[in-house]
Amino acid sequence: MPFSSLPGSSGLEYAFHPRSMAVVGLSPDPHGTWLNQVYLQAPLDAGFRGPIYPVNLKGGHIGKHRVYPSLRDVPGPVDYVVSCVPAQHTPGLLEDCRAAGVKAVQLYTAGFSETGQGEGIDLQNRLLEIARKGRMRLIGPNCMGVYCPNSGMSFSLDFPREPGNVGFLCQSGGNTIYLIRSAAARGLRFSKGISFGNACDVNECDILEYLADDPETEVIAAYIEGTSDGRRLAGILAKTAPAKPVVIYKGGYTDAGHRAAASHTGAMAGSHEVWDGAIRQAGAIRVNSVEEMTDMLVALSKLKRPRGLNTCVVGIGGGASVIASDELEQAGLELPPIPVSIQERLQQIIPPAGGMLRNPIDAFPLTRLVLYRKAAGVGASASVARGDRGWGDFISLIEEWPDIDLVVFQFAFDIPPIPASSWVAATIEPTLAAAKMCRLPSVVVFHSIVTDASWQASQRMREICLTEGIPFFLSLRGAAQSIIRVVQGGKTG
Amino acid sequence: MPFSSLPGSSGLEYAFHPRSMAVVGLSPDPHGTWLNQVYLQAPLDAGFRGPIYPVNLKGGHIGKHRVYPSLRDVPGPVDYVVSCVPAQHTPGLLEDCRAAGVKAVQLYTAGFSETGQGEGIDLQNRLLEIARKGRMRLIGPNCMGVYCPNSGMSFSLDFPREPGNVGFLCQSGGNTIYLIRSAAARGLRFSKGISFGNACDVNECDILEYLADDPETEVIAAYIEGTSDGRRLAGILAKTAPAKPVVIYKGGYTDAGHRAAASHTGAMAGSHEVWDGAIRQAGAIRVNSVEEMTDMLVALSKLKRPRGLNTCVVGIGGGASVIASDELEQAGLELPPIPVSIQERLQQIIPPAGGMLRNPIDAFPLTRLVLYRKAAGVGASASVARGDRGWGDFISLIEEWPDIDLVVFQFAFDIPPIPASSWVAATIEPTLAAAKMCRLPSVVVFHSIVTDASWQASQRMREICLTEGIPFFLSLRGAAQSIIRVVQGGKTG
Repeated sequence: MPFSSLPGSSGLEYAFHPRSMAVVGLSPDPHGTWLNQVYLQAPLDAGFRGPIYPVNLKGGHIGKHRVYPSLRDVPGPVDYVVSCVPAQHTPGLLEDCRAAGVKAVQLYTAGFSETGQGEGIDLQNRLLEIARKGRMRLIGPNCMGVYCPNSGMSFSLDFPREPGNVGFLCQSGGNTIYLIRSAAARGLRFSKGISFGNACDVNECDILEYLADDPETEVIAAYIEGTSDGRRLAGILAKTAPAKPVVIYKGGYTDAGHRAAASHTGAMAGSHEVWDGAIRQAGAIRVNSVEEMTDMLVALSKLKRPRGLNTCVVGIGGGASVIASDELEQAGLELPPIPVSIQERLQQIIPPAGGMLRNPIDAFPLTRLVLYRKAAGVGASASVARGDRGWGDFISLIEEWPDIDLVVFQFAFDIPPIPASSWVAATIEPTLAAAKMCRLPSVVVFHSIVTDASWQASQRMREICLTEGIPFFLSLRGAAQSIIRVVQGGKTG
Repeated sequence: MPFSSLPGSSGLEYAFHPRSMAVVGLSPDPHGTWLNQVYLQAPLDAGFRGPIYPVNLKGGHIGKHRVYPSLRDVPGPVDYVVSCVPAQHTPGLLEDCRAAGVKAVQLYTAGFSETGQGEGIDLQNRLLEIARKGRMRLIGPNCMGVYCPNSGMSFSLDFPREPGNVGFLCQSGGNTIYLIRSAAARGLRFSKGISFGNACDVNECDILEYLADDPETEVIAAYIEGTSDGRRLAGILAKTAPAKPVVIYKGGYTDAGHRAAASHTGAMAGSHEVWDGAIRQAGAIRVNSVEEMTDMLVALSKLKRPRGLNTCVVGIGGGASVIASDELEQAGLELPPIPVSIQERLQQIIPPAGGMLRNPIDAFPLTRLVLYRKAAGVGASASVARGDRGWGDFISLIEEWPDIDLVVFQFAFDIPPIPASSWVAATIEPTLAAAKMCRLPSVVVFHSIVTDASWQASQRMREICLTEGIPFFLSLRGAAQSIIRVVQGGKTG
């Protein structure tokens, strides 16, 4: 097979599951640089099982790791090389890689086609030429590389070690990191993540093809600034999206963003309309920010799919209820009034249940009941069980409300007049137990968080959701927008 | 003057500056209730100078404060009464207030017209009747009351003690608290804040009139769920907005929100279009969330008004630059390319300044320069002075860039691959010094914050902005939207 026809995703397996790795250009300086954390400490911490060889002309040691003066001095075969050397030295390094039988090279350094200048473009072309001759795959240049929890590939100390179902490709290194952190904080985990920068060899099409066939990947997320082969991309999307949800964040969707993308990764960005059409036609889901992408992935991965948009909203406080109604309905959810038969039975649960007879339901009476029982020596959790008078009966009743497809439990942290430390645990913890008990598709929204006290309190509540597997969101609108798309079967809005 | 024609804002002075206060219905229970914090401890902490008399039939003490069995037992005149007694006891209390010559009464408790039931509506009407006879003003019922730092009126322990230029009226108690906290965290301070609930007597029109004439109030913010006198409200808005910016958040702008508002404060909400027209015609500014209102108040109170929309964006990292371009331009700011003459001079500041030759400018080279100097024993702050090679020259050059109206310094906290603790101070602190030095209107945006480490690091950077008086935002889009409205002279978008 001639090198020019190297198939799209061939060799990518070596990038995700290399048996050994060399990192070239790390500084043996005892103070080190941050790159040592990124490309040596991160994979070590993530449990990379094969050897990792630091390489630097100066030799010496980084911590207890011997630094080899060149790739030729490394005492074993090397599948994968991370290059942190300056752009002008990369052709020499690639020749060394080729001689050593390396399968894939990731180039961290910038200074190539994204400069828009002849020198950088020529240099990048030279790299590709050497790679093709050596049947090596190139990732980048100008990228962060590969995250694969199953093989211990990582480039940030705080990425989760556990694998998951989301496959993520991203043209921007920074946005790769941001999305992984943002998603991880919401309980999502990744099969593979790859930052591919200038995409001189491995590109968005190759990775999409790989992830489409990857049994570990159930949902695909992509941040793309541009493509060199729109026709191929559209074809792959159309083939993939019906089988696995594909969420696409097209970076550079304005004129200024387009220009920034071009100078960031040298991407040919294409018009907003062309992208919109291609994504829509394929049945993929378009988002416009990392926040939106995170919400979408939570809804796709964590939420039981609701049959429709009829939503019962449960929370605390009148102002929060007005805000919740506006935000959720504006986004497209529907909040039907409570039928009289259900109202009557609600009143039997707690007699003075004024706030409970409309949708959104103000659950303050239920909360108070739990607090009273707690004060009377009955544990708060004892008030949240099916058949229990209180949350138990309440949840059973909501489940019987005809036509309700979804329950949104919403909490506004900075709305009550007393410090979060004095009410959050007592109020929200029982509600989370109720949310977990509910058989209808349910989500929790923690919102209106502006003070440090509320941030800290919300962190503890998020931990409970993570432990209990309750899907949660940090904005009402974000929750509604992504849930609606799940209901609509992944069609773009 | 007959009581029915009691002028709109008359008597409100007693609500904002009472000489003495009684709080009726607090519990002398040694464990207390949270209401003791809200209506006794909060004004005491806020420095209320007159006496505060707790009143409860049971007598006893709350802490060291004697509790009087009734208003008649209080040993001195009372200007202002806070009522926390159950709805059915309020007429009796109001008769006592009338007998005692009280000037204004705030009713915390709910159970009146917002129930939509005859009993509650009749009760509320009875209160108004007694109040009119006694020439007393009523605030509420179903509200949190008054915040006035200058007189020590407060209802939350964490409200700022220092006064400021924002006057705020709010139909929802919870949203009053949320807006004050949200705005306070961004460096805003209030002349007066008032939560007015069901508005049975003192209503949005009365308060708007009062704040329009109040010399301490320069900007007016209003959260309104509905009005009983749209014509009067439109007239006051039209008279006020040309003199002082008025920002209006109309709660209940969807059908579900409308219903929630009606049952929250009994408000007659009015159609979206009617409100939109009235606000637009008056030249007031409409917002749709507390977050948007906070951003708008920051832009109105803290930002030097830009002449136009041409924006220079300065930040760190390629992905963050693409995000920033998209968000800012989508909202309506303009990011012109850097003229060649400025590009040439930028290259003289730092020779390999690839990332600095476009807009957004990637300030990583400047950041690195500061770090190098710091490593060489020169303090980071020494690199941020006018005429200094680095940030100093850079800022001077941006100021000379023709047609630039505004500089946005943006920082994505969770984008770099290393922990926030290791880069934020060294990178952002010098940039904040540069932002402060800049003579063009400048704002800072801290965004992409999802981890606890980034939240904590951003809190420290926000503190610097607060101390140095640098306007800052927590979302790119929020910053752009509110700045654009300031440029457009407060016209609705």
